[in-house]
Amino acid sequence: MKKIGDLYQSGDWKGEKHVPVIHAPEKVKKGEVIEVNLNIGEEIPHPNTQEHYIAWIKLYFHPEGSNFPVEIGSYTFNSHGEYDIYTEPYVTARFKVEKSGTLYATSYCNIHGLWENSLELVVED
Amino acid sequence: MKKIGDLYQSGDWKGEKHVPVIHAPEKVKKGEVIEVNLNIGEEIPHPNTQEHYIAWIKLYFHPEGSNFPVEIGSYTFNSHGEYDIYTEPYVTARFKVEKSGTLYATSYCNIHGLWENSLELVVED
Amino acid sequence: MKKIGDLYQSGDWKGEKHVPVIHAPEKVKKGEVIEVNLNIGEEIPHPNTQEHYIAWIKLYFHPEGSNFPVEIGSYTFNSHGEYDIYTEPYVTARFKVEKSGTLYATSYCNIHGLWENSLELVVED
Amino acid sequence: MKKIGDLYQSGDWKGEKHVPVIHAPEKVKKGEVIEVNLNIGEEIPHPNTQEHYIAWIKLYFHPEGSNFPVEIGSYTFNSHGEYDIYTEPYVTARFKVEKSGTLYATSYCNIHGLWENSLELVVED
Ligand SMILES: [Fe+3]
Ligand SMILES: [Fe+3]
Ligand SMILES: [Fe+3]
Ligand SMILES: [Fe+3]
Repeated sequence: MKKIGDLYQSGDWKGEKHVPVIHAPEKVKKGEVIEVNLNIGEEIPHPNTQEHYIAWIKLYFHPEGSNFPVEIGSYTFNSHGEYDIYTEPYVTARFKVEKSGTLYATSYCNIHGLWENSLELVVED
Repeated sequence: MKKIGDLYQSGDWKGEKHVPVIHAPEKVKKGEVIEVNLNIGEEIPHPNTQEHYIAWIKLYFHPEGSNFPVEIGSYTFNSHGEYDIYTEPYVTARFKVEKSGTLYATSYCNIHGLWENSLELVVED
Repeated sequence: MKKIGDLYQSGDWKGEKHVPVIHAPEKVKKGEVIEVNLNIGEEIPHPNTQEHYIAWIKLYFHPEGSNFPVEIGSYTFNSHGEYDIYTEPYVTARFKVEKSGTLYATSYCNIHGLWENSLELVVED
Repeated sequence: MKKIGDLYQSGDWKGEKHVPVIHAPEKVKKGEVIEVNLNIGEEIPHPNTQEHYIAWIKLYFHPEGSNFPVEIGSYTFNSHGEYDIYTEPYVTARFKVEKSGTLYATSYCNIHGLWENSLELVVED
């Protein structure tokens, strides 16, 4: 069977404008509110027009020792020139966790498909 | 016909925990990137459990002189205790506009339904 | 304060192409799975291009005697010409309820804003 | 870097209740409206409670010869017992394509994570 995983693309966000950027603290305290910034195009802006745009970013967290990732949030960017309004592919979110694990950001460009990035999050007692 | 508008509830967010809070600059320059923070429970926290949670916030902008609002973004908060992970009903977004108008934030609690708030945004040349 | 309810538009879907059409059984049995079809443009098709399209339909149910509506589902239509692929603003959904009440469908056109429709659902023991 | 693709699970939907079922015509005519049914649990029902539920299904189409998949639609199932209302993880969607390719359905259980399935679609002139 064909796999959706084979369609996710990645790379270094400093050189590839589609890769979702994840900014998170290196270490956080258990149960503390964490702030994470997600964006596309921090280094190299992506087009934002009716024909070509970033439609969404999703954030997942996979706690170490767990078999399954959990979806933290889903963020859609809906305006791309309607009445001269442009939504930037940028969002800052907050959440709490109890264990270290891996953050995954996935995103979608309506022309260039699915992209991903990940980042380790260290949680201390 | 019954109207969805009659089901939207509002109030002062300093006294009613469901009302979406909108923080935006009072004045912005035309075409400049604007940062807006949206949250529920800044003053009085809302429950965040599997049985009772804030599911989403949406942001619209209605430019003055236009007949129609434009959806800026839609933000869903998806984890409410799964593996001790809690998404906070909090998001900071960015966008650009060319005219003054009204920001509307709408939100949904799975037990207490639909809520709304609005804020004027002044755009200067 | 300005109200989002004042921005929702409505009308007869046989004459206004933006109004969400709701097809549901007139009567259902308590706890039975109900099938509801939602669409835009059944009588008069709406444009479906990169510049002008129906972005989503949401379905709510407001049980009689309850103070709050419940969101059944949210359906986004994401392709509007990319690689000659067009998502139709059409969805059939299923759900179960225990009481009579009102179905609300809301929808969004990226150019013509927010629209709504409602329909009574009778649930028999 | 860790890959989101490694977190997608699959299997035979007749034996594994989380796998999204895709029902589509074997052959369709170019430019004709196609109807696709997506559901979870057709053979073995999945739980639908506040603590454990199917949150969403997404549908993508990857035209042969293209480098990128296109998102057709995204469907969220939002009620899991609130006021005795239960959204079934079931949706029928419609779209048009011009070329043969692969349909991908992805889905998310709030406890058991990400799942996927795919199906070939043959488009004839
Ligand atoms: Fe792109
Ligand atoms: Fe509440
Ligand atoms: Fe329109
Ligand atoms: Fe499950």
